[in-house]
Amino acid sequence: MHPAELDTPSLVVDLEVMERNIRRLADYCAVHGLQLRPHAKTHKVPEIARMQMAQGAAGITVAKIGEAEVMADAGMRDILIVYPLYGQAKWDRLVRLAGRARVAVAMDSAGIAREITERARQAGVRVDILAEFDTGFHRCGLPLEPESMETVQRMRDLAGAGWRGILVYPGHIMGNSASREPLIAEQNSRMARLLGMLDAAGVACPVVSGGNTPAAYASHRFQGITEIRPGTYVFNDKDTVCAESAVYEDCALTVLTSVVSVSVRGKAMVDAGSKTLSADSLLSGDGRGFGQVLSHPEIPIEDLSEEHGHLDVTRASRAPKLGEKLRIVPNHVCTCVNLHDTIYGVRGDEVVCEWKVAARGRVR
Amino acid sequence: MHPAELDTPSLVVDLEVMERNIRRLADYCAVHGLQLRPHAKTHKVPEIARMQMAQGAAGITVAKIGEAEVMADAGMRDILIVYPLYGQAKWDRLVRLAGRARVAVAMDSAGIAREITERARQAGVRVDILAEFDTGFHRCGLPLEPESMETVQRMRDLAGAGWRGILVYPGHIMGNSASREPLIAEQNSRMARLLGMLDAAGVACPVVSGGNTPAAYASHRFQGITEIRPGTYVFNDKDTVCAESAVYEDCALTVLTSVVSVSVRGKAMVDAGSKTLSADSLLSGDGRGFGQVLSHPEIPIEDLSEEHGHLDVTRASRAPKLGEKLRIVPNHVCTCVNLHDTIYGVRGDEVVCEWKVAARGRVR
Repeated sequence: MHPAELDTPSLVVDLEVMERNIRRLADYCAVHGLQLRPHAKTHKVPEIARMQMAQGAAGITVAKIGEAEVMADAGMRDILIVYPLYGQAKWDRLVRLAGRARVAVAMDSAGIAREITERARQAGVRVDILAEFDTGFHRCGLPLEPESMETVQRMRDLAGAGWRGILVYPGHIMGNSASREPLIAEQNSRMARLLGMLDAAGVACPVVSGGNTPAAYASHRFQGITEIRPGTYVFNDKDTVCAESAVYEDCALTVLTSVVSVSVRGKAMVDAGSKTLSADSLLSGDGRGFGQVLSHPEIPIEDLSEEHGHLDVTRASRAPKLGEKLRIVPNHVCTCVNLHDTIYGVRGDEVVCEWKVAARGRVR
Repeated sequence: MHPAELDTPSLVVDLEVMERNIRRLADYCAVHGLQLRPHAKTHKVPEIARMQMAQGAAGITVAKIGEAEVMADAGMRDILIVYPLYGQAKWDRLVRLAGRARVAVAMDSAGIAREITERARQAGVRVDILAEFDTGFHRCGLPLEPESMETVQRMRDLAGAGWRGILVYPGHIMGNSASREPLIAEQNSRMARLLGMLDAAGVACPVVSGGNTPAAYASHRFQGITEIRPGTYVFNDKDTVCAESAVYEDCALTVLTSVVSVSVRGKAMVDAGSKTLSADSLLSGDGRGFGQVLSHPEIPIEDLSEEHGHLDVTRASRAPKLGEKLRIVPNHVCTCVNLHDTIYGVRGDEVVCEWKVAARGRVR
């Protein structure tokens, strides 16, 4: 089937572009001696995780124990959960998971480390531990203060052979390539201070995990980093393009949509709204609109209803016709994919596969 | 099980509150002689649609042919699709659906009416038609112009016995109860003009379908309306509260969430982010934040990551503790529910049922 024959809305992945994205970052990491541990939250598709592993990823990253279970079911054997898992139900599932895969968890609380390592010990399994530090995003992570060293020492001692090191998430390193430079410099001075404190406290860190998609190809310039965990790079999206970290030709995933109404003057409605694209606002560029209509940069998606994308066609070179199919690059591909059960894979002019978004809906 | 024992994040519905919401609007509609056709896009749960029908709803409303199929599978026999269905695949499914339920579709194009009625005739079934008009939301709908009357006459003639009338969506009637008043007056003058034009064109309209949740209890004051299609009222949400159309005690659905990190000063992170609450911004009130923490109005949800809700606890009467469970009313309950596979129903202090969000993911 030709991809344009797919009913709409549909998520369509250009496999050649995706494979190029996977390979390019894997090659970059190999050149710079960085471990690549892609974040599977972006695609939630085991088949794609396998392709990332086949291209040299050291393991995968997830955010949820439910995602980790799906990936383990699909044969992944090295999984990092970058989320402070809390509660008995999740700790029990984590320990069961550690019986069939190498599992690590990032956390910023010695209390959680105690709960998890104690349960793992009783079950005779090992759960690796990374201590998360806050280097400026101010979400999770221990503060860069001397008092944090005691917490890290406790976590290391609890983890024993499962002590892996530290983890940071530089989510504040945004904007375009120029505006990221001072942020990278600041991050490096913070990391130097943190690594100095850890060294002085006698805490060895075999792994220093960091990295995101916008600054993925600057990862070798980040102080001390041994491993990166980008997710979005596999598909890219409008945010990545506006951050100057990709071009639209690197966007592997598009939403195929149809024009369903042209009755209102100056507008066209497509069947891709907030339940198809997600309502995530654009974090970079001019911050406006809800995705990019490919081949029609002059047609902004100015608003979203749940099932309608509102196109402003007042500056369109040619007004889209009723029933016409358009391709949209979403603002944020991770939340877009999370709305769908199926992704279609396309090679050239053929739909060649259909993937289930198997880890979608695993909210716990 | 006590609801607080549920693992997080979980969608929890207080059945008494939901039943009261369903009953109250049904009673209002009965008093005012209005047909109630609740929009099932909000809940996507057949069991809830059945409760709405049992309380006197005339039928249900959906946005997608896939949602209609799920609801028909569950026994719904009167379904209105308020969406301009386009394309052969959808038209064929629509005609098949019309073989097992009374089905109507709203549209703003005589071309679509021709495609659908022609297919229905060939299959020996009837698909009812409503013509959508744009009364100010500027999304779909024919303009209020004399030229539109020819289109409506064509649609009526194509529909034959299946001609049902007209439909409007007053999505622009927002704000609080005071700011809605001039908008209602304007809407009424537009409706008077439209109904006058239709009358002059000899187009009888047995059904004039309108209504939304914010102005639901003002529906009897809307000129000419015979039927309303509110969705959100079944649960309500922060937007409904800020629009002064409900109070938090009327919010039947909350997201049960846990505090997973308190390491960053002035903040607490909960396990409800944009993949749990949806990133929909608040359309009413001060327009800020991503939901309401019940019992803690002084703790804003200032930002969302995909799996983190960022609580600002700088003004908290008592800082939430790690592992503490909180209940959040989402900004927009329709897009929130759409992210989940399961809803838990609670009566008093007991979890009494678990519903599958059966029509979720039916994006086509």
